[in-house]
Amino acid sequence: MSVTAAKGFTAAGIAAGIKQNGNPDLALVVNTGPRRAAAGVFTSNRVKAAPVVWSQQVVADGELTAVVLNSGGANACTGPQGFQDTHATAEKVAETLTARGMETGAGDVAVASTGLIGILLPMDKLLPGVEKAAAELSAHGGEKAAIAIKTTDTVHKTCVVQKDGWTVGGMAKGAGMLAPGLATMLVVLTTDADVDTAGLDAALRQATRVTFDRVDSDGCMSTNDTVLLLASGAAEVTPAPDAFAQAVQEVCADLARQLIGDAEGASKDIRIEVINAASEDDAVEVGRTIARNNLLKCAIHGEDPNWGRVLSAIGTTSAVFEPDLLNVAINGVWVCKNGSVGEDRDLVDMRYREVVITADLAAGSDSAVIWANDLTADYVHENSAYSS
Amino acid sequence: MSVTAAKGFTAAGIAAGIKQNGNPDLALVVNTGPRRAAAGVFTSNRVKAAPVVWSQQVVADGELTAVVLNSGGANACTGPQGFQDTHATAEKVAETLTARGMETGAGDVAVASTGLIGILLPMDKLLPGVEKAAAELSAHGGEKAAIAIKTTDTVHKTCVVQKDGWTVGGMAKGAGMLAPGLATMLVVLTTDADVDTAGLDAALRQATRVTFDRVDSDGCMSTNDTVLLLASGAAEVTPAPDAFAQAVQEVCADLARQLIGDAEGASKDIRIEVINAASEDDAVEVGRTIARNNLLKCAIHGEDPNWGRVLSAIGTTSAVFEPDLLNVAINGVWVCKNGSVGEDRDLVDMRYREVVITADLAAGSDSAVIWANDLTADYVHENSAYSS
Repeated sequence: MSVTAAKGFTAAGIAAGIKQNGNPDLALVVNTGPRRAAAGVFTSNRVKAAPVVWSQQVVADGELTAVVLNSGGANACTGPQGFQDTHATAEKVAETLTARGMETGAGDVAVASTGLIGILLPMDKLLPGVEKAAAELSAHGGEKAAIAIKTTDTVHKTCVVQKDGWTVGGMAKGAGMLAPGLATMLVVLTTDADVDTAGLDAALRQATRVTFDRVDSDGCMSTNDTVLLLASGAAEVTPAPDAFAQAVQEVCADLARQLIGDAEGASKDIRIEVINAASEDDAVEVGRTIARNNLLKCAIHGEDPNWGRVLSAIGTTSAVFEPDLLNVAINGVWVCKNGSVGEDRDLVDMRYREVVITADLAAGSDSAVIWANDLTADYVHENSAYSS
Repeated sequence: MSVTAAKGFTAAGIAAGIKQNGNPDLALVVNTGPRRAAAGVFTSNRVKAAPVVWSQQVVADGELTAVVLNSGGANACTGPQGFQDTHATAEKVAETLTARGMETGAGDVAVASTGLIGILLPMDKLLPGVEKAAAELSAHGGEKAAIAIKTTDTVHKTCVVQKDGWTVGGMAKGAGMLAPGLATMLVVLTTDADVDTAGLDAALRQATRVTFDRVDSDGCMSTNDTVLLLASGAAEVTPAPDAFAQAVQEVCADLARQLIGDAEGASKDIRIEVINAASEDDAVEVGRTIARNNLLKCAIHGEDPNWGRVLSAIGTTSAVFEPDLLNVAINGVWVCKNGSVGEDRDLVDMRYREVVITADLAAGSDSAVIWANDLTADYVHENSAYSS
């Protein structure tokens, strides 16, 4: 059900012809109210795509009526024309919705794009696509919307959490360029809970910090990452802030896990648990550094419990630790103890897709979990065989 | 001629049986004087192998008589026993050389090791190997020494620069784990110039900063990197400091280039030139970030001039730049101008092994060059198919 699981939302996903293969490539999500509160987080990449620049501006007032998303082109590094195209897309959505009795201005329409960088969008296809999508808006359109934002994703990603009289749902796309500061991903979350902008913003930032910001498939940060949370208030329930934040985090964690599970070319999902760190920042730095070590990612692909590569990665961080006190477990076997040889590496069973690396810094009591993928020949193939 | 091109040095390379395949695995380099000045730079990884800890200590007084190097085992993350083994190796070298009339103490013997992390060295093979190597020491042994330190290197690497009456020569090994702060590499440089420790140290630091510290094959920093420079004074010539520094840099640049040219699984050598930066630090930061972008490395492998991935990498740095002023050339074609589409990407010819990426930050007048490799299925295979 995705973004239409919560009451007060309609959605559609159609093929506008942006993708040359004819697959669905345009999604529209509309908040039918009564409330139209919204919050967003965006890529921290300083090279931002036009739709990111646009959407950051329009969500700043805490209100959105609609989100239009396209795959088949990122509209990044496209200069002034690219920004004009984003603006024209929002105008087209506003005009079309207004004509259908849902009065809105372009300033309440967020735009998100994903696909190849450095290519202008085919506006002659995209703008008529907006009309087609508006005509298909439905309270059951969430799944089609989720399908329309796929790029190299092999499956569409949705999640719904239902609470006592209110719901948080969402959809996500993302398969490569997944790195902290937001993965290459577009995410739209919706809720029918009656939560104001400040409540949405707090819940969204708290959730993304420990979910999407902690997946690192390939160390590459996108120009287009966008996560939006829209509240319709249609359930006429105002949950306690903690309960609401918890539900948003549940949905984000689930979608983040789905992103890792569908990462380009990956054969393993690696859960990196950093424990006994002097601070949460230390734990995150160590986790990310381990997550980005290509030699280790290759070893995991080869089902080789190569703890030496974990230690050599930890050694490049500024975290508090003593080399002689480090411990590392792979799938529960402590193959490295006190910075040296530990339990028999032959005890480690790495046949399954999920691999758990536990790095014990022996320096405090903080911890963090980072999710990553292995590095495979399929990843190389997928990212070298064609421009993406 | 490698380390024995300069007068006043003997060397040997033999098979001690450390490698199970019987290939050469032990090298010995001896400074026969009259001077025995030395300087060293080592990995900045905080997880340092036992031989690195040892060699940092023994070179601190500015004198070395000999360097013993082994492949087949890194002696890293091996605890107190690993350090005792390094110490015993240096003692064995000192004792053996002293018995042969070259009186020295263990405190003047540097040790370097390369190979798998987390495995104790087979001392029952290594110590007898020291005697065998000492027996084969010769003024023509430089090439054999260079061969004995290979791990996954496909070729041995040597370089000699001859000046007016004096010489700088050297050998290097390194094929993976090549990243700033020193690649996974062992390098021994020798000169017969009559230069004191301070002169050696200054020349070596100046040279490594712009050569070995600026190769980044796979973003992974080793626990064992060691670069040593030994001066015998046998040429009885004291060059001007600038001329000497220049010669050392020439040798380092040549060896660094050889390391990139033989990087594990690589099909392309990527020269990343960052120009018009606000500072040299900015240029280096941007160059390294581009060098480590897996998506770009895949694109280069696929001969795809994917400048969008260059921009998305630059965008993650803290360097001074405006996104709308960035320019990127690939092999001389300015495919990105002012942060957007530039010249026709089809004009870019990427058929040859060397690829040049020029990133113009339009923010100043400083520059830097970083060397990197592409990311290939062969790299994945080489680093996943067995523990290394």
